[in-house]
Amino acid sequence: MAAAEEAGKHVFCEKPIALDLEATDRAIAAVAKAGILFQIGFQRRFDPAYAKAKALITSGALGTIEHIRDTMRDPGPPPRAYLEVCGGLYRDMTIHNFDCVRWLMGREPREVFAMGSSLVDPMFAELGDVDTSIVSIRFDNDALAVIDNSRRSNFGYDVRTEVFGSKGALLIGQHADTPMLRLDAEGTHTDHVYFFLERFAGAYITELQVWIAAIQAGKAEGPDGRDARAAIALAYAAEASRAERALVDCSRWSAPA
Amino acid sequence: MAAAEEAGKHVFCEKPIALDLEATDRAIAAVAKAGILFQIGFQRRFDPAYAKAKALITSGALGTIEHIRDTMRDPGPPPRAYLEVCGGLYRDMTIHNFDCVRWLMGREPREVFAMGSSLVDPMFAELGDVDTSIVSIRFDNDALAVIDNSRRSNFGYDVRTEVFGSKGALLIGQHADTPMLRLDAEGTHTDHVYFFLERFAGAYITELQVWIAAIQAGKAEGPDGRDARAAIALAYAAEASRAERALVDCSRWSAPA
Amino acid sequence: MAAAEEAGKHVFCEKPIALDLEATDRAIAAVAKAGILFQIGFQRRFDPAYAKAKALITSGALGTIEHIRDTMRDPGPPPRAYLEVCGGLYRDMTIHNFDCVRWLMGREPREVFAMGSSLVDPMFAELGDVDTSIVSIRFDNDALAVIDNSRRSNFGYDVRTEVFGSKGALLIGQHADTPMLRLDAEGTHTDHVYFFLERFAGAYITELQVWIAAIQAGKAEGPDGRDARAAIALAYAAEASRAERALVDCSRWSAPA
Amino acid sequence: MAAAEEAGKHVFCEKPIALDLEATDRAIAAVAKAGILFQIGFQRRFDPAYAKAKALITSGALGTIEHIRDTMRDPGPPPRAYLEVCGGLYRDMTIHNFDCVRWLMGREPREVFAMGSSLVDPMFAELGDVDTSIVSIRFDNDALAVIDNSRRSNFGYDVRTEVFGSKGALLIGQHADTPMLRLDAEGTHTDHVYFFLERFAGAYITELQVWIAAIQAGKAEGPDGRDARAAIALAYAAEASRAERALVDCSRWSAPA
Repeated sequence: MAAAEEAGKHVFCEKPIALDLEATDRAIAAVAKAGILFQIGFQRRFDPAYAKAKALITSGALGTIEHIRDTMRDPGPPPRAYLEVCGGLYRDMTIHNFDCVRWLMGREPREVFAMGSSLVDPMFAELGDVDTSIVSIRFDNDALAVIDNSRRSNFGYDVRTEVFGSKGALLIGQHADTPMLRLDAEGTHTDHVYFFLERFAGAYITELQVWIAAIQAGKAEGPDGRDARAAIALAYAAEASRAERALVDCSRWSAPA
Repeated sequence: MAAAEEAGKHVFCEKPIALDLEATDRAIAAVAKAGILFQIGFQRRFDPAYAKAKALITSGALGTIEHIRDTMRDPGPPPRAYLEVCGGLYRDMTIHNFDCVRWLMGREPREVFAMGSSLVDPMFAELGDVDTSIVSIRFDNDALAVIDNSRRSNFGYDVRTEVFGSKGALLIGQHADTPMLRLDAEGTHTDHVYFFLERFAGAYITELQVWIAAIQAGKAEGPDGRDARAAIALAYAAEASRAERALVDCSRWSAPA
Repeated sequence: MAAAEEAGKHVFCEKPIALDLEATDRAIAAVAKAGILFQIGFQRRFDPAYAKAKALITSGALGTIEHIRDTMRDPGPPPRAYLEVCGGLYRDMTIHNFDCVRWLMGREPREVFAMGSSLVDPMFAELGDVDTSIVSIRFDNDALAVIDNSRRSNFGYDVRTEVFGSKGALLIGQHADTPMLRLDAEGTHTDHVYFFLERFAGAYITELQVWIAAIQAGKAEGPDGRDARAAIALAYAAEASRAERALVDCSRWSAPA
Repeated sequence: MAAAEEAGKHVFCEKPIALDLEATDRAIAAVAKAGILFQIGFQRRFDPAYAKAKALITSGALGTIEHIRDTMRDPGPPPRAYLEVCGGLYRDMTIHNFDCVRWLMGREPREVFAMGSSLVDPMFAELGDVDTSIVSIRFDNDALAVIDNSRRSNFGYDVRTEVFGSKGALLIGQHADTPMLRLDAEGTHTDHVYFFLERFAGAYITELQVWIAAIQAGKAEGPDGRDARAAIALAYAAEASRAERALVDCSRWSAPA
């Protein structure tokens, strides 16, 4: 990324910018200094259902948002070689949920509590990582969010988000890949969504279209360095909470002035 | 039933009143003469979903009703001994659909075309009966309805009705008995509704409550002799259409003056 | 198309080849004579749900197919100028269903009965057309199919197909465009699929990929001239049935020897 | 209850036995001493979907249970007079979830963390209570559970439970009261379940049938004093966690020897 900045190239960056907060802050500062455009690859924001949810929330149709439940399960764990370098559950996987709940809530997090276990495979414990996790977040307006993850569903990719407001709720999710029910003596059956490339195929296209439009317009509109930093800071908070077995205050990972 | 009428007892009668139109007409005349209350057991009218559908239609919320699709499949065929005395598919099974579409449409049928096959079991053909059938009905306002039946679903009881109006539609149906999804490597699964006693458990209770209230009030409000006759007349029309391989006019089975 | 054939170009043709059977037969003969590849634009065959359904049927997983219910409603009627030249409901709209049920059944139709009405707009009656229709089809193995159509749903594009076999059933359909439920005091709500371009966006891409692969391989694998002719012949049968108010035999529209 | 025990009457008790743990322990001891039968009113255990879920879990069909998500929202808050005496969110409402997750998990809780807010109505804060809450629980085998509640959904009664095992998952829930979709220009709509009496109508009947059978057999099979105590102890733990803003160890509320 440093090379791109030096060359004055605009940067579209897959999440996360970096696995540590310091490098993230340096990259953001470099982008600002270079005056280039930047977009982080939080593709979920460009999924039609999530985009419609955000629009409904912004419109006030749901009233004040009070609670968000966000769940994500991968079909199965990645190989150990990947786990060793990915930064752990919170920086690698939950980071999408951290961005999602913060984006939908439209507020900043204040407190975090994380509870995790290694249940899926002993290698997670060996690496000091967890494969099953619950993260509770209190936002600065006392609204709450809870994120739960697993590295192995055994039933495909499970991505569902529920937003509860004072006037109503939204439930985003998808159990079936194909709109077909199969009925037999055992009951009614559908197929399932395999993984993120299938679930978010359209979102990946849209996020690049938004990015190209941003370059053409000379103005970035997508998730930016501040969003990327906020998500990685939440990962730090979750890790600290788990290590300290305590509620942690997000101000410990505030952005540099 | 004759005995009940002579004794002046009110009569709640399971469908059909009789397997032939002449006996049905005689029973209706006897009820009228005896001045007793009468209700026919079209329990589907008392199911919460169907009752709500009828109320929405009557309220005008769907605009003019233009088309109704009504489907019913039994989990498996009844024993041959039952088939020999039940009056055939149209008087025994489709009769519920005949009442349902006429009741929801709120109009009288004008023309009927039936197409049937014996595919499930050779005994249906041996008995001159069909086990798989499509009946098309034109009502007196040119609105249409189509009913399809099978004597064997192999996936539980399948009762679904769709009502299409100029302003919108209703889809009544139920694939799962229990509101529980089961997810595994094969996909997402639900159980199914076993048969009519399970699907219409509440409706059977409500129809009796309505009947008891009718007796207490001295005034019947449920489906009556005229409804029973209209359904059996449609069964006659479907049988004639199948035998004659032709569109038939419902006026051939008009009620006696 | 004649020009393309003369030039020896392979032909991908949107349905129908022609609005009359004679021109269709001439085109098919010309394609055969020119030795060029041909594919007709029945895109539904390339939709993931329909393709999976066909594969399940072919695999025998559903047992013998006994009945197919196929429904299609457009959100609203096309302009009168289109209706005047489109060939009427059966050649313009139902033709997709004719191909669909014949393809899924894997058998040839033997008898057809059509019942239609003009309920949506008086212009349909003025043009001698119908806007609401039920077509019953008996196949050469006595299996049945029923197709119902409307030129106006008022609730988006409604395309659903149900296949009933001796061992189980498939229900293909899609009520929601986005996998999001919205809950409020009125109940639970989803959006709907707007029209065919949205519903079959992927299928249009896949059918062209299949066509390009066919040209590269020098061998067509998609729906061909025989399929196109069979669908238009069913439209003829439905029109004749409606005009004659009678069951018609499909052999009246057999392909030339 | 003391009177019943003195009189030697069997006791069916609505949850909770008492609002404090000491009285609960005294009641349990009195029941034991009197040698009478006892059943606590955790009706959810008798709902067909929950009962089927428990049976599937016990059968091993889901493998090892790793995570449970349990959510419950009331349509709207109870009156202040009720809130003043009900014991607060955790003893009054979450107690059902505490029993549910412990029963489905089949393990004992080890650690609890609770995060709550008063967002729905200021009276909750005035009473020192919360109306929106997340409770994370670690069980003695490191499996996790998360419960979230709200005192006001504005969209009916929301009771859904998700169980994730090493081989698959169960999602129990019900958005619609009546199996009817309504489609119009706005989308597809269903009604919703009003409140607990509607959702658990069958469960209330079954729990009493089980209780009557227990009396006849002289042996209680339903949720007992130990279950009642475990649920109230979890409420204590959640309250302490909220007050102390810390993870708490369940052994602080162990049953007396």
